[in-house]
Amino acid sequence: MSLIVTGTIGIDTIHTPSGEVRKDVLGGSAAYFAAAASFYGTVRMVAAVGDDLPSSHMQTLGMFPRIDTGGLEVRKGSKTFRWGGKYAENMDQRDTLFTELGVLIEEPPAVPPEFKDSAFIFLANTAPAVQLQMLEQFPRRVMAVADTMDLWINTARSDLEALIRRVDGLVLNYDEAEMFSGKRNTIRAAKKILELGPKFVVVKKGEHGCLFIHRDGIAAMPAYPAEEVVDPTGAGDTFAGGMMGHIARVSERGLAEVPTSFDVVRRALAHGTVMASFTIESFSLDRLATLTQEQIDRRFDEFVDLTSVS
Amino acid sequence: MSLIVTGTIGIDTIHTPSGEVRKDVLGGSAAYFAAAASFYGTVRMVAAVGDDLPSSHMQTLGMFPRIDTGGLEVRKGSKTFRWGGKYAENMDQRDTLFTELGVLIEEPPAVPPEFKDSAFIFLANTAPAVQLQMLEQFPRRVMAVADTMDLWINTARSDLEALIRRVDGLVLNYDEAEMFSGKRNTIRAAKKILELGPKFVVVKKGEHGCLFIHRDGIAAMPAYPAEEVVDPTGAGDTFAGGMMGHIARVSERGLAEVPTSFDVVRRALAHGTVMASFTIESFSLDRLATLTQEQIDRRFDEFVDLTSVS
Repeated sequence: MSLIVTGTIGIDTIHTPSGEVRKDVLGGSAAYFAAAASFYGTVRMVAAVGDDLPSSHMQTLGMFPRIDTGGLEVRKGSKTFRWGGKYAENMDQRDTLFTELGVLIEEPPAVPPEFKDSAFIFLANTAPAVQLQMLEQFPRRVMAVADTMDLWINTARSDLEALIRRVDGLVLNYDEAEMFSGKRNTIRAAKKILELGPKFVVVKKGEHGCLFIHRDGIAAMPAYPAEEVVDPTGAGDTFAGGMMGHIARVSERGLAEVPTSFDVVRRALAHGTVMASFTIESFSLDRLATLTQEQIDRRFDEFVDLTSVS
Repeated sequence: MSLIVTGTIGIDTIHTPSGEVRKDVLGGSAAYFAAAASFYGTVRMVAAVGDDLPSSHMQTLGMFPRIDTGGLEVRKGSKTFRWGGKYAENMDQRDTLFTELGVLIEEPPAVPPEFKDSAFIFLANTAPAVQLQMLEQFPRRVMAVADTMDLWINTARSDLEALIRRVDGLVLNYDEAEMFSGKRNTIRAAKKILELGPKFVVVKKGEHGCLFIHRDGIAAMPAYPAEEVVDPTGAGDTFAGGMMGHIARVSERGLAEVPTSFDVVRRALAHGTVMASFTIESFSLDRLATLTQEQIDRRFDEFVDLTSVS
């Protein structure tokens, strides 16, 4: 499966509302995305880290045999991206305690020649100019989806618009969709984004699920109702990993004629939702590292059931 | 259909984020509930108003021929309940500008003898002691559901617990469920409430839909994705009206052996969601007053489709 993610590998420090602190755990958009997508097939990863990345974190990535780390650059003398965050009581808001960009302010990682034939591209959140530069390296792409965030809406608007014009789908948070479009209503906000050219927008609402606004229709999906949330970090990237993993899998098996179609992506969102529901049960990739296909299948069936109206 | 609602008829003044003000429009929980439920069959209404209720508001109620206003007391020299509210930009928060309780601090309205055989009881939000007193007047009830709010959680906790022990279902808002139970997680909060005895809890999340926690299962449902929200006032009571209307209808047609069962109530929540989606399109009962069964059916089908995973 020629699915690829470009993004970050990070070292995270997480403060939970209960006062628990986990220092220096493996994180980053590419790590969460790839771990989730690997349950659907091979996933290529392009990211850069410094030589300070603990070997235990490399071993953790190795626990997902279908992650192809051929595009993971370990840079001598550089520092891995670090982030520290503290979650509020209800787990739906967080404060950033610190950000150490490290390799993220250096040259973006190179795409290895053997990855250039990738068909399904996920550009995890980073500067839109870098995302565009990455996108151009995949001339045989079938489908490209980008994630973004408020920072770029405020500081790199024209780059972001250029990016949105060139991708098939955009994934972003609830408040960011409204911020980008100037529309107070999510549906109208997403429709405004569609005017730039993409086929669909996925608006993530955390514990409230997501809205899916596609040229050919609209869908609304709740989150999996979790009784215990240990750490929501990485939920969005895991969601994207399950989504893109499903799309790449069904497409390459010849089960989806048009991978960007409303029906294919809608079902993919349920896969993303299920994968995200596992990630938040533990810190870092801990839950995904012990996850089985049977557990995924069981929760997927449960999710289909609990979202069905009758 | 022996469905009955006990609640308020109010005169509302609504300030929208765009600066628009609607003065003295018809409102109140019983009005919204009954208008919605009347699309499913006859609905009895028990409420009290003063002699200041404009006759135009009585005429509006008359536009819903299946509302039986036999329990609507018009009290000479009394004042109708009045409420003024202002919605925040995103329509999901509101400030109360004023509350004039009027008849609400007098004796509760009497239940007419011919209403005492009611089978399906909805106790709209008011002091839990009054809800309990109402409940006792329906000895032949098949199913009773109550709504409540933060005020009573803080000021009438033991009455509220006594009420919850005696109803089949409780409807309340997201934050209220967590406030009542002391649990930060909605599912755990609702399960804590189930320990008091009811069969189910419906947790309303406004534009994010609802969670349904029943002894026999859990469901999650998004709201209908509305592109324009004119006035969210009454959405919760309309939701309850559609829900109870559906339950009473299928039960009395012999289509639901156990009206309180997971499957029956779950489908009812979709009806509630659809009815609420109409209410918010206009002020007061304006949209419901022009609604047709065909429009309801069409939106219901659309809602089933947009919540389906595949």
